[in-house]
Amino acid sequence: HWLVGDKTSTRGGGVLAGGLALKSRSHTARRPQVDMERETPEAAPPPTFLRGEEASSGSSSARARFERLIRRVQAEVCAALEAVEEGSGGGGVVFREDAWTRPGGGGGISRVLQGGHVFEKAAVNVSVVYGVMPPDAYRAARPDAAAGVEKAGPVPFFAAGVSSVIHPNNPFAPTLHFNYRYFETEAPQDAPGAPRQWWFGGGTDLTPSYIIEEDIKHFHSVQKQACDKFDPTFYPRFKKWCDDYFHIKHRGERRGVGGIFFDDLNDHDQETLLDFATECAASVIPAYIPIIERRKDTPFTEDHRAWQQLRRGRYVEFNLVYDRGTTFGLKTGGRIESILVSLPLTARWEYDHKDSFDTLIDRLVVCCDASFDWV
Amino acid sequence: HWLVGDKTSTRGGGVLAGGLALKSRSHTARRPQVDMERETPEAAPPPTFLRGEEASSGSSSARARFERLIRRVQAEVCAALEAVEEGSGGGGVVFREDAWTRPGGGGGISRVLQGGHVFEKAAVNVSVVYGVMPPDAYRAARPDAAAGVEKAGPVPFFAAGVSSVIHPNNPFAPTLHFNYRYFETEAPQDAPGAPRQWWFGGGTDLTPSYIIEEDIKHFHSVQKQACDKFDPTFYPRFKKWCDDYFHIKHRGERRGVGGIFFDDLNDHDQETLLDFATECAASVIPAYIPIIERRKDTPFTEDHRAWQQLRRGRYVEFNLVYDRGTTFGLKTGGRIESILVSLPLTARWEYDHKDSFDTLIDRLVVCCDASFDWV
Repeated sequence: HWLVGDKTSTRGGGVLAGGLALKSRSHTARRPQVDMERETPEAAPPPTFLRGEEASSGSSSARARFERLIRRVQAEVCAALEAVEEGSGGGGVVFREDAWTRPGGGGGISRVLQGGHVFEKAAVNVSVVYGVMPPDAYRAARPDAAAGVEKAGPVPFFAAGVSSVIHPNNPFAPTLHFNYRYFETEAPQDAPGAPRQWWFGGGTDLTPSYIIEEDIKHFHSVQKQACDKFDPTFYPRFKKWCDDYFHIKHRGERRGVGGIFFDDLNDHDQETLLDFATECAASVIPAYIPIIERRKDTPFTEDHRAWQQLRRGRYVEFNLVYDRGTTFGLKTGGRIESILVSLPLTARWEYDHKDSFDTLIDRLVVCCDASFDWV
Repeated sequence: HWLVGDKTSTRGGGVLAGGLALKSRSHTARRPQVDMERETPEAAPPPTFLRGEEASSGSSSARARFERLIRRVQAEVCAALEAVEEGSGGGGVVFREDAWTRPGGGGGISRVLQGGHVFEKAAVNVSVVYGVMPPDAYRAARPDAAAGVEKAGPVPFFAAGVSSVIHPNNPFAPTLHFNYRYFETEAPQDAPGAPRQWWFGGGTDLTPSYIIEEDIKHFHSVQKQACDKFDPTFYPRFKKWCDDYFHIKHRGERRGVGGIFFDDLNDHDQETLLDFATECAASVIPAYIPIIERRKDTPFTEDHRAWQQLRRGRYVEFNLVYDRGTTFGLKTGGRIESILVSLPLTARWEYDHKDSFDTLIDRLVVCCDASFDWV
C-alpha cells in the first residue's frame, strides 16, 4: 500500500499523483493500492502546502519554486478566463475556490467556473502531495538505479502539479487540457547509495469538435515555439507522445488534435527543466485565448451542438477509461469532485450515430486514427 | 491470448463474454488479452448462431435451448416496450435491428429504440460466442478441477446471453438493466479426465433517480417470487450480490436500488438452473412494465430533469469504470456500438452539486452506502 498525503489525480482535474509517472514506466505492473488520508477543507488557501523549512517564503528548493509556479499559473489562467467572461457580457461569472489540506502535509486548491457566457465548465486545480511509495515502485520508475535497492524500505515522495480542463459553450470553440507536474523521491531507506530521484511531466492539448485549421496551427505553433527554446527534439518528441497518449483505443480515434505531452523527464538538468515547465505553462494563455476570442460567438445550430455533445461523450470515455490521472485518482480515493471536474457539464451517446457526408468532412480528422503535422 | 468468436460485453449492453465469469473467480488475475474476430454485418438475423449439429432446430442441448431462450426474451421485451410506446402516442417508434456473425461461429443481434415518447434509449442485445481460453483461465474458473489440467492446452468455450438497458424519458420512471448468460467449456485438451464445465450468470436491477417505495417494493417482490420458486436462499443471496456489485466505489454510492445478481452458478443441476434463468427472464416484463405505466406521464420540472441527468452521469461512471462486461468488451475490441449502447442518451456532471434539504430527502437512498430490505 502506498500512503500518500493527497491523491487527487494527475490529469483528470485533480492533480498529479506522481505515482502515475511511476506506473508509466512499468506497463505491466498492476496499480498499487493506495490509502489516501482524508482531506480537511480550508476556508482559504494556506500560503504554502509545503512542510518544514521549505514552507518559508524565501525557499529556493525545486519543490518550493514549483509550488510557486503552479499557484501563479492557476491565478493567471483563472484571471484570463474571467477576463474573457467579463468581455463577453459575463461580468460576475467568476471562479469559485475550494481549498483543502491533509494531516500529513500537502493539500490542494480547486478553482471552478460553471455556467459562464463563454465557458460551460472550466477548472484549474493545484495539488501538493507528500506520500510513501513501495520500493518496487521506485525500482520500476528508475530501473537504472534499481541495483542498490533490493532491500529498500518504503520510499517517501513529493509531488506537485497544476491541472486544468476548459470546456467552452460554443461548438466551434475547442476544449483545452493542460497539466504540469513535478515529482521527487527521497533516497530509499536501508539502501545506502541509492539516489534521490526527480522528474517532470505534463503537457497541453486541444480537443475541438470541428477542425478549424487556422486554430490548430496557431495552437501547435505556440507549443512548438515553447519547446524550441530548449531543445529542437522536444516538439516532435512530445507531439508524438501526445498523439499516442490521447488515443481512445476502443473507438480507434484520437481524443483531439494533440499538442505536447511528456512524462518522467529528467534528461536535462533540473534548472533547465523547471524553466521548460515554466515556459510551457506560460504558453497556455497565448495558445488558447486567441482561439476562444475568435470562436466564442460563432453562430451555430442545434446540429452543431448535438455533434459537440457526442464529442463530449468521447471525452468522458477517454477520461474514465484511459486517463491515468483519473483512473488512479478513482482507485485511490482522492477528492472526487476535483478528480471528476474534468468531465464536461453535459454529454451524449447516440447508438450508431452516422453523419451525412457533407458534415462528416469537417469532422473526419478528429475521429480518424492518424496524426497530422500542423506546423 | 484468448481467441473468441465474439466479445461484446456481459452486462454493458453487448452481451456476455463468459470470460468475465471466469475472471470473477480470480480477483487478482490480470485481464487476458483477447483478439476478437471482426464481425460480419448480416442483412437479417440467421435462424441460429450455433454451429454443427446444434444448429438444427430440434436440438435439445443446453446451448440450443439457451439460445432459443435469449432470442425469445429479446423478442418479448422489445414487443412489450413497443406496445408501451404505441399506447403512449409513440406509434411507429420501433426497435431497429443490427445483426452480425463471426467467421469462426457465433454472432449477435442488437435491437435499439432511441428517441421514443416513453423511452429515451432502450437496447436489448443477444450474443453467442465461440472462443478459446488459456488453460490458466480454466483453472482459475474451476479450482476444484485444476489438479488434472497442469499441462492442458487451450480450452474451447461457448457463451451466450441476453443483455438490456432501458432508459425512460420521465425522471420518475426508473432505468432497468438485465442480463442472463450461459457459459460452457469443452474438456481441456491434453488433460484426460478433466471435466467439461458450465455455469449460469445474470440478474435484473433497477436504477431510479427518485425513490418511490411502491415501485421498488413491486420490483423486488417480483424478483423474490421468481427466486422463491427454486430455492429460498436465492433471493437473499442474489439481492446482496446485486447490492455489492452495483457499487460506485469512488462515490461511496450504490448505482441504484438493486434487484438480483448471480454469477458462476452451477450448484444445482443444469436443468433446474436453465429453468431458473428462464423464470428470471420472464419476470422482467411483469417487474418493470407496471412501473413504467404508472410513471411515464408523471409531470416533472427542469429541476427533476437535471437531477435525473446527474444520476445518468453516475450510470456512465459505473459502466465505464466498474462494469465487468463493458470494461472487458472495451479491452477486447467487440462491436463497440453494442457495448456502449448501455450508456444513456445524455448525462450531466456538475461540480460539487448540492441539493436543498427538501429535495434531498427523496434522493437520499439512491446515494447512500447501504442496502435496504424492500420486501
